[in-house]
Amino acid sequence: MTASPTPSHGAADALLAGRPRVAAAGIDLLSTSLRDQGVDVLDVEWRPPVEGTGPALARIAADPRRAEANRTAVERIVAAEPHWVGVSTAAEALGLERGQFLHAGPPIAWEAASGPLRGALIGAMLLEGLASTPEEAEALAERGAIELDSCHHHRTVGPMAGVVSPSMPVLVVENAAFGNRAHATLNEGLGKVLRYGAFGPEVLERLRWMAAVLAPAMAAAVGRLGSLDLRAIEVQALQMGDELHNRNRAGSALVVRALVPPLLEAGLDGSTVADVVRFINGNEHFFLNLGMPAAKSATDPARDLPGSSVVVAMARNGTEFGIQLSGTGDRWFTGPAQVPQGLLFSGYGPEDANPDIGDSTIMETAGLGGFAMAAAPAIVGFIGGRAADALAATRSMYGITLAEHPHLRIPVLESRGTPVGIDATLVARTGTVPVVNTGIAGRVAGTGQVGAGLVTPPISAFRDAVLALAELAPEPDGAVA
Amino acid sequence: MTASPTPSHGAADALLAGRPRVAAAGIDLLSTSLRDQGVDVLDVEWRPPVEGTGPALARIAADPRRAEANRTAVERIVAAEPHWVGVSTAAEALGLERGQFLHAGPPIAWEAASGPLRGALIGAMLLEGLASTPEEAEALAERGAIELDSCHHHRTVGPMAGVVSPSMPVLVVENAAFGNRAHATLNEGLGKVLRYGAFGPEVLERLRWMAAVLAPAMAAAVGRLGSLDLRAIEVQALQMGDELHNRNRAGSALVVRALVPPLLEAGLDGSTVADVVRFINGNEHFFLNLGMPAAKSATDPARDLPGSSVVVAMARNGTEFGIQLSGTGDRWFTGPAQVPQGLLFSGYGPEDANPDIGDSTIMETAGLGGFAMAAAPAIVGFIGGRAADALAATRSMYGITLAEHPHLRIPVLESRGTPVGIDATLVARTGTVPVVNTGIAGRVAGTGQVGAGLVTPPISAFRDAVLALAELAPEPDGAVA
Repeated sequence: MTASPTPSHGAADALLAGRPRVAAAGIDLLSTSLRDQGVDVLDVEWRPPVEGTGPALARIAADPRRAEANRTAVERIVAAEPHWVGVSTAAEALGLERGQFLHAGPPIAWEAASGPLRGALIGAMLLEGLASTPEEAEALAERGAIELDSCHHHRTVGPMAGVVSPSMPVLVVENAAFGNRAHATLNEGLGKVLRYGAFGPEVLERLRWMAAVLAPAMAAAVGRLGSLDLRAIEVQALQMGDELHNRNRAGSALVVRALVPPLLEAGLDGSTVADVVRFINGNEHFFLNLGMPAAKSATDPARDLPGSSVVVAMARNGTEFGIQLSGTGDRWFTGPAQVPQGLLFSGYGPEDANPDIGDSTIMETAGLGGFAMAAAPAIVGFIGGRAADALAATRSMYGITLAEHPHLRIPVLESRGTPVGIDATLVARTGTVPVVNTGIAGRVAGTGQVGAGLVTPPISAFRDAVLALAELAPEPDGAVA
Repeated sequence: MTASPTPSHGAADALLAGRPRVAAAGIDLLSTSLRDQGVDVLDVEWRPPVEGTGPALARIAADPRRAEANRTAVERIVAAEPHWVGVSTAAEALGLERGQFLHAGPPIAWEAASGPLRGALIGAMLLEGLASTPEEAEALAERGAIELDSCHHHRTVGPMAGVVSPSMPVLVVENAAFGNRAHATLNEGLGKVLRYGAFGPEVLERLRWMAAVLAPAMAAAVGRLGSLDLRAIEVQALQMGDELHNRNRAGSALVVRALVPPLLEAGLDGSTVADVVRFINGNEHFFLNLGMPAAKSATDPARDLPGSSVVVAMARNGTEFGIQLSGTGDRWFTGPAQVPQGLLFSGYGPEDANPDIGDSTIMETAGLGGFAMAAAPAIVGFIGGRAADALAATRSMYGITLAEHPHLRIPVLESRGTPVGIDATLVARTGTVPVVNTGIAGRVAGTGQVGAGLVTPPISAFRDAVLALAELAPEPDGAVA
C-alpha cells in the first residue's frame, strides 16, 4: 500500500489552493454572502439539537450499553411473527372487572379527559349497565366510581378513545417469535362509533351485535384456521396501497376473503355469514384492530433494555401525547396533544376537531402508518396533500430510525424496508418528530369522527425522555454495569 | 395592448445577440462539438419517423376528419361504464355452434398455430366431446374439421390462447354508456390451464367444475346484485397496486368480497360457496377475465370512425401480433409476435417460452396493463426490473396516447389519469411501441405457463396500419367528405 490512510500535508495544501467548496447549515446568511461572491455552497439540513438536550445526548452517546441495547430492541421488533389466534373478552383475556375501563394513551383521570374520551366512557358505562342514561354515567365518573387505566398497561391497544370494558370482545394476537400476546377490540366502522366518542343508541346496538354475532363468528373462523399470519397480510397490504394506520383497505379485503371459507365450514348459517361479511366490507378499517395488536406484540419484547433509546410506545389520550422508551421502563413522557391537520368531513370546521387521540400510533412505533406512507399515495385523497408528500414522509423517517424492516417493504421505493425503530436521541438531535397519520375525533362528546390527517407529536415528550434516559446512564468516568 | 403578438425585429436581434441556446436531436456529433466550444446544448429525444411512413403520416395529418374522429374515439373509450351483468354460455350468448372455436389474436389457421394455441384447441375439442384423445383431436384439426375465428370478431376477448368453445360459460359485460356487450370465459387460475395450452385430465376436470359449479354460482350472485360496476372496482384496484393486466390481486379480492353476501343470499349452500371462494382466493388473476371484456366494451364503441388513427384492438395469436385502427374497419395489421422478456418459473429456460399470445393486450388498448404500470410497482417482483422502470413505462406511454383517463388514475403520479387512446401515427412518428405486460406460455402444447414479463409489439404492424389509413385519407387537394 502506498496511499496514506491519513490526510497528508499535500492534500491540505490542495484543499486550500483549490476553489473553495462550502457546506453551510442553519440560517442562510453565510450561504447567501458566499454565493454573492461566486462561491458554490451546499446547504445541508443540519439543525442544532432540541434545546436543553445537548449534555443529555452526550451522556447517552457515551453509555457503553446503548449500541447493543438498541440493536437488540430493533432486532426484536423486526423479528416479530404476529398471528391472530383467537377472540376472547376483556374480562376473560385481561381480567378486567366490572367498573374497570381501559383507555388509549398515557394514564388520565376523568377530570382531564377530552370530549371523545368522556363520550366513549359514557357509552361503555351504558353498555355495561352501570348507568342507564348519559347523565347518570357522567355523574358516576365524576364521583370517581369507575376505575381507569391505560390499555398499554394491559397488553392492549385501542384506536382513538380506545375504551375497553369487561364485556367487550377482544381480538387476541400472539407474537410467535416471543410468545407474548396483545389485544384490541373489534373495529366498529366509521362515523358515529364509540371509539370516536359517540354513545347514541345506534352505537350501543352495534356494539351488542358485535358481541353477540360478529365476535363469535370471528372466533369460530379463526378457531377453524388455527391462526392467521398477520405479517404475511401486512406484507401484501403494503404492496396494495395500505400504510396500515389510516388506510387498511387491502388488509381488510385480504382478511375477509381468508375468513369466508372457515366461517362457512364452521357451521354458521349463510345469512349470519352474509351479515358479517357485509359488515366488514363496509368497514375499510377492519384490519386496523388486528394491525394494532400485531404492532404492540412486536414492540413489547423490545421493552426494558437498559440503555436503549428506542421508542416502544407512542400513544395519545386526547389531552396528552405520550411515549415510552425501552431504557426507561414504564415511565411515560408526555406533551400536549396537537390537533391533527388534514381533511375534515363535510359540515365540520377546525373548531370541531379534538386534539390527537388513540393508541394507533403503535403502527408508527412499529414502522408502519406515517412511516410507510410512501406505500399508500392514494391516502392523500383522505388526509390531504400530495403523493410526493407521502413519499417524502417515509424518506424523512429513515433519519430518526435505526433499521429498515426486513419483511415490511415498500414497492415504489424499490422494495426498501419501512423505517423502523425510532431512536429518541435522533429525534432530539434533529428536531424531526415522527410522522403520524390519524383520524380526527369531534371535540364534543358524542360527535364521532370529523376527519383525518397528520399530526405533529410534541417534541417535549422526546426531550423529556432523553433527559430521563441520560439520568439512568452510567457516570461517564464511573464503572459500567 | 402595447405588446406585439408577433416576434419583432428587436426580439430577433436579441436572440442573435445573446448567448446561443441550442436544442439538438439525433446522434451527438453536433452537441459534442458545441459543448467543446462552451455552448449549452439540450439534447432532445426526437427520432425520425419509422422508415417508409413519412408520406403516409403527412397525408394523415392533412386529413381534415382526423382531429374530430380521434377526439370522438377517445371520448368514447373513456366514457365507458362497464358493468358485469351476467353469466351465459358461448353457445347462448355468442351463437357458437358445435365444431366452432374462438381464439385470441388475429385470425389464424391450425397449420400456423403455435403450441399453446394448438394445446388449448385440443383441450377444447376433448371438452366438447369432439375427440376422445389428443391425437384424435389433432387429426380432426389437421383435416379442417373444426372452424376457427378470432374472439374479437364475436364481441369476446380471451387471455393467452383465448380458446372458447360452445359449452364454456362466459362472463357478460355491458357498457352502460353505449349499450354494447363484451364477453370472456372465467379465469382458471395459474399453472397448467387451458389458456396456456395445457389439456391434461386435471385441466378438463377443472373446466367441467367451472361450468357445473362456479359459473352457476357466479350467475346467481350477479343476478342477485343486478350488476357489478367494474369501473368502480378498477378505480380502487389502481389505488391498490394493480395495473389490471398482469397484476389483479386487488381487483380479485374486491370482487370476491362483493360476491359473498349475494352468493349466500342466493340460497347456495355453504360448502359450495366455500369452494367457490377458495377457488377465487387461490387465483390472483380472477379479475382479469372481467377487466378484459370491460376494456373491450370500452374500445368497441370507438371503432369505425373514418379518419381516426386510434388503436381499437391489439391482440396476439401466438404467431402474430395484430392491431386494428378505428379508421380502418375490421382489417388487422400484423407482425411477428415476439417472445416476452421477464422472469421464468423455476425449471424453464428461454427456449421454453412461446411468442406472445392472447387478447389481454385489450387492457393496454384501454389505458391499463403496461400503460398503468406506475400504479403497480410491486409487479416487478413477478416480471423483473425495478420499480423505477414501472413508473417510466407509464410516463413514456403519454407520448403515444391522446388522453389521460378521467376516472382511471394513478396515485403515485399525483392521480394523473392513465395514458389512453393509442394513436398509431404517434407510434410511427416516434418509434415508441406500446408497453405490454403479459404472461409467458410454454412453447410446447400441454406445458402451461412458464413465466411473465414485458413484450415488444412489432413496429411493422403500426407501420402497415398507418400506410393503410393514409390510403383511405382524402386526396390532399381533393374534395373532403
